[in-house]
Amino acid sequence: MTGWNRKDLIAIYDLDPEEINLILDTAEEFKKVSGRRIKKVPALRGKTVVNLFVEPSTRTRTSFELAEQRLSADIINIAAASSSLTKGETLLDTARNIEAMQVDFIVMRHSAVGAHYFLADRIRCGVINAGDGAHEHPTQALLDIFTIREKKGRIKGLNVTILGDILHSRVARSNIWGLLKLGANVTVAGPSTLVPHEFDSIGVRVCDNLPDALEDADVVNLLRIQHERQRAAFFPSIGEYASVFGLNPKTMRHLKPGALVMHPGPINRGVELDSKIADGPQSVILEQVTNGIAVRMAVLYLISNALSR
Amino acid sequence: MTGWNRKDLIAIYDLDPEEINLILDTAEEFKKVSGRRIKKVPALRGKTVVNLFVEPSTRTRTSFELAEQRLSADIINIAAASSSLTKGETLLDTARNIEAMQVDFIVMRHSAVGAHYFLADRIRCGVINAGDGAHEHPTQALLDIFTIREKKGRIKGLNVTILGDILHSRVARSNIWGLLKLGANVTVAGPSTLVPHEFDSIGVRVCDNLPDALEDADVVNLLRIQHERQRAAFFPSIGEYASVFGLNPKTMRHLKPGALVMHPGPINRGVELDSKIADGPQSVILEQVTNGIAVRMAVLYLISNALSR
Amino acid sequence: MTGWNRKDLIAIYDLDPEEINLILDTAEEFKKVSGRRIKKVPALRGKTVVNLFVEPSTRTRTSFELAEQRLSADIINIAAASSSLTKGETLLDTARNIEAMQVDFIVMRHSAVGAHYFLADRIRCGVINAGDGAHEHPTQALLDIFTIREKKGRIKGLNVTILGDILHSRVARSNIWGLLKLGANVTVAGPSTLVPHEFDSIGVRVCDNLPDALEDADVVNLLRIQHERQRAAFFPSIGEYASVFGLNPKTMRHLKPGALVMHPGPINRGVELDSKIADGPQSVILEQVTNGIAVRMAVLYLISNALSR
Repeated sequence: MTGWNRKDLIAIYDLDPEEINLILDTAEEFKKVSGRRIKKVPALRGKTVVNLFVEPSTRTRTSFELAEQRLSADIINIAAASSSLTKGETLLDTARNIEAMQVDFIVMRHSAVGAHYFLADRIRCGVINAGDGAHEHPTQALLDIFTIREKKGRIKGLNVTILGDILHSRVARSNIWGLLKLGANVTVAGPSTLVPHEFDSIGVRVCDNLPDALEDADVVNLLRIQHERQRAAFFPSIGEYASVFGLNPKTMRHLKPGALVMHPGPINRGVELDSKIADGPQSVILEQVTNGIAVRMAVLYLISNALSR
Repeated sequence: MTGWNRKDLIAIYDLDPEEINLILDTAEEFKKVSGRRIKKVPALRGKTVVNLFVEPSTRTRTSFELAEQRLSADIINIAAASSSLTKGETLLDTARNIEAMQVDFIVMRHSAVGAHYFLADRIRCGVINAGDGAHEHPTQALLDIFTIREKKGRIKGLNVTILGDILHSRVARSNIWGLLKLGANVTVAGPSTLVPHEFDSIGVRVCDNLPDALEDADVVNLLRIQHERQRAAFFPSIGEYASVFGLNPKTMRHLKPGALVMHPGPINRGVELDSKIADGPQSVILEQVTNGIAVRMAVLYLISNALSR
Repeated sequence: MTGWNRKDLIAIYDLDPEEINLILDTAEEFKKVSGRRIKKVPALRGKTVVNLFVEPSTRTRTSFELAEQRLSADIINIAAASSSLTKGETLLDTARNIEAMQVDFIVMRHSAVGAHYFLADRIRCGVINAGDGAHEHPTQALLDIFTIREKKGRIKGLNVTILGDILHSRVARSNIWGLLKLGANVTVAGPSTLVPHEFDSIGVRVCDNLPDALEDADVVNLLRIQHERQRAAFFPSIGEYASVFGLNPKTMRHLKPGALVMHPGPINRGVELDSKIADGPQSVILEQVTNGIAVRMAVLYLISNALSR
């Protein structure tokens, strides 16, 4: 294929490598926009985006909103708590109402896996997945992969380790699919309760000890350990997790000096990641944040072109 | 009269037929804007609108906000929970503060009937009623009447039935005044506890059984039955209501094949309206949503012109 | 000095008189913008402002947001409740993330004194203090001083009385520093529990009775008495406060006829201020609100110029 023909972005799993590379190449151009004195292009002027966050989010919603503003779109934010959804309206009715308002895009976070596909089949708006349960978070994976490609010059043949609660992580799933499609070697690591061996059936290496997981890694991508909805059944304690699987000056010895340290944020300093590493020379965590806007601008732009064809 | 001279829109009751028609004609022009590739005109550029929703609303607030964006206005959203109102400031002080910030419009939803008139008399801003208690919801009626006129080519002489909780409905009141002013024949129908016979004194037919209410109707406009603040005292049960006054394939037999089915949303599927009808060929519910933006753009535009004179 | 070289505005205490006057002079120009038919200039087009209100505020946040809109900035609002801060992220991590999104300004309200300095030293964004605990609220003082200068033609030599809960007030502190720097004579007055005599060490007159406090005043600036977080330990009752330190037709006899009455809002009518005075000819309370936007536009504009140098 030679272009982008999708009106939706729901899962990295659905994309072929050319589509992923097209997003990354387009994002490279948009990254320049945010570096200018006037951080704005008129690409989406007069288009409307609804950010429908049925699960709350500051970080991802803000990144999307900035991407939308820098493309000059008109923006409506709808949060779950304030929405008609709480008046018993179905999600489909909400979406059809949004469509009837001649909205061009729905950027949605929703706990139900499948909700995005369901809507995308039934409405003309572009549907962009901003996270669905433990399924996928495609723009997070795209910004992670963009950051790796920018720093390492390629994805193919790199060894990427994803570390933490793989079982419950949509970030992990989206990264795994994207990295495999582009030819990286992926290792997933963490306590065996959170990283079941069944993962090897999808083509990743499963590893239950940190030294092995880090040894040949060119990149280590750490997942957030969820304090707030304690995974009590899955590991003994936060302190235990930090000492066995946390990245700190001691465990860093296993990692190559040139390897990248990544994290989708927000960081639990002292749990999965020690401050010395988070703020150290191998960390590209804040560059991930910067690149998130470029990647989201690229996705909105490509879909907008497809919609207007 | 040959134009629009009001700085406020508070009640359909206050308008004469020429004013209503002027809004509808203006809305026809604005409807085209939302169908364009660039859904935006500069009519309200550099004007400020405050959406002050002292009662929460997603649907109406979003429709107003889209109308404002497509007119290029600057927009401030103030929700009750976050407002100085909770610090004991009076509504008049809040409004005077908004006025002092050189705001042009206050779009307000408020539970107190009379609040809009009270403010409109005391501040220079245009005041637009987005719903006040059980009194009026003028832009909802205007979008309903716009939709009927668009589909039927006229209002005069049409038989319009409004069905449901007439007693507590601002949507019903605004529709009744607008339809009567434009020469329609209006029937209100529902359980007699919710549709007291006193309504006949304002020139509408009161009907307490569905077959009679639907028989000659060209349009049936269904009101939402309020699950959440159960009208326990007014009818035996939701199931009972659905079977006696709900519109479903069985009760639809009483309605002419060409009659329009309308609903202000959000729909309680299976209560006042069966899914087969809501999604069927006679339903114009989503067109009402589309038209809501056009009507609100027209109201803002006409008032803006009046304010700058 | 001949210009503005700061990337942050955190405290009036830090400014020299020339800097304060430069803000006031710039605000005079921006005040004209809000009086135009098109209330908008492109000065901050393509710049991004994050309003980070870790303590809630409608009034100040709205004033800043209007100032930002009228400068054509792109705006992100982050409220505490919805923020990553509640996921245990540190304030510095939140700010670094905002910076990584190539944001130009953080307008922040935060209960912790020192939080703004801490961030300003560590990030490139301009940091504007929208209130920090009981420390400072610099833009409130600037709008108060702007209003006095506009009405009285000067600040030097004027007698300004600040009345109320001086001990807990950031508005009082910012006003005191600004007024003293510009050569006014400042009196602070109120119950001695709320206006300790130690204040005289910073060059203000301390007064514990209303007649003396008002006698020679050219301006009296009333502070809000906090109903909601009752200062139970500090004075016997609201009624007692109102009768001894409230401004009403009876106590107004002590004030010169030409003296200005100011209040930062929201007013507790009948407590610190009687309605007759609030709405009377000496009150400039609503002009303060109008001037707030001009002053905030000036601060954003001056910092924006400094940032782009």
